Amino acid sequence: MRISQLASETAVPVATIKYYLREGLLHEGQLTSATQAAYNNSHVRRLRLIRALVGGAGLSIAATRELLDGVDSPPESGHDLLGIAHHALAPPLASSVDTAVVDELMAEWGWDPQAVDQDGKAAVAEALEGLRAVDFDFPEGLLSVYASAMYSVAAAEIDGVPTESAESAVRYVVLGTVLVEPLLLALRRLAQQSASLERFGARPLE
Amino acid sequence: MRISQLASETAVPVATIKYYLREGLLHEGQLTSATQAAYNNSHVRRLRLIRALVGGAGLSIAATRELLDGVDSPPESGHDLLGIAHHALAPPLASSVDTAVVDELMAEWGWDPQAVDQDGKAAVAEALEGLRAVDFDFPEGLLSVYASAMYSVAAAEIDGVPTESAESAVRYVVLGTVLVEPLLLALRRLAQQSASLERFGARPLE
Repeated sequence: MRISQLASETAVPVATIKYYLREGLLHEGQLTSATQAAYNNSHVRRLRLIRALVGGAGLSIAATRELLDGVDSPPESGHDLLGIAHHALAPPLASSVDTAVVDELMAEWGWDPQAVDQDGKAAVAEALEGLRAVDFDFPEGLLSVYASAMYSVAAAEIDGVPTESAESAVRYVVLGTVLVEPLLLALRRLAQQSASLERFGARPLE
Repeated sequence: MRISQLASETAVPVATIKYYLREGLLHEGQLTSATQAAYNNSHVRRLRLIRALVGGAGLSIAATRELLDGVDSPPESGHDLLGIAHHALAPPLASSVDTAVVDELMAEWGWDPQAVDQDGKAAVAEALEGLRAVDFDFPEGLLSVYASAMYSVAAAEIDGVPTESAESAVRYVVLGTVLVEPLLLALRRLAQQSASLERFGARPLE
């Protein structure tokens, strides 16, 4: 198909497709003349993936490129896939962040500190620091509830990683990591509203 | 204290403090002359809160103002506090999103559909739509795991809402909603790494 058909098939404007081609996110079509190229279903699939990452998940072009490189050249171990996805998705961190508190918490929760990377620990430490900086007091036991809820989520997710091909595993891990985040946060808010109505009803606070 | 002391006390530059004053996020100090004002601990606390929301949680000035209005004029019911926090924090949604699927899921999970607002349901529907758009297949049962994990998180959080004053409740709800999000996502990634090493070790994928 021509680029105009690719555009209408995917609802991505021609100018945007050309931008992705220039940035190397989308592979070139088959040249049919000096100025025209033919595109196929592999371009449709790839464009939908790019739109999901850039539009759906709001990733930068650089992070999207890093993830697509992971899709194109998957590592050998499923565990390393996570490393690629997490690295591409990790926000820049304060280099000074002290992760000792996270080691202590992981020991308390029985998580193996050897299994996790420094960036992952730093992200938790930074989130805790953000709460500490505004003197947020965790109610007794809440942090452990968070840990066990997230472990049950993660265990079910990892359990579901498809193994029929490296590509399907990369796709699942990358999309599952990025696109499930807004789902979990939206579910948390819905659940808060449910739980809050149960606790407070329409009663005044004081 | 003078504005320069306020700046060094909070590590917020004077120019930024003046910006927050102009934007009405920070209340004016007590004028001591035509060009000078005196600030006190209420300004220190407020500045730390603003920094937590703008810097820590990455909120826009408009969303920060909406949240601070909630702190300054808290509603009567704890349930309504959540409405304010969630509204200020909700990303703009596609108005066309169909929430019927969320009603069905909530019925399946036993959540009261009357307890939640339309924005909350739309956020879940939009997140699901983002996954569907890239043909993400949920492994059997994963969505229910998400729902029950998030409900256990939310129930513990709502249980911990302090009730000694409306202000402390607002503070807890607003900060807890915003600043705990990166913590939960970071914990999920750590837990994924833990669970993944357990499942895959260093074995190749195929």
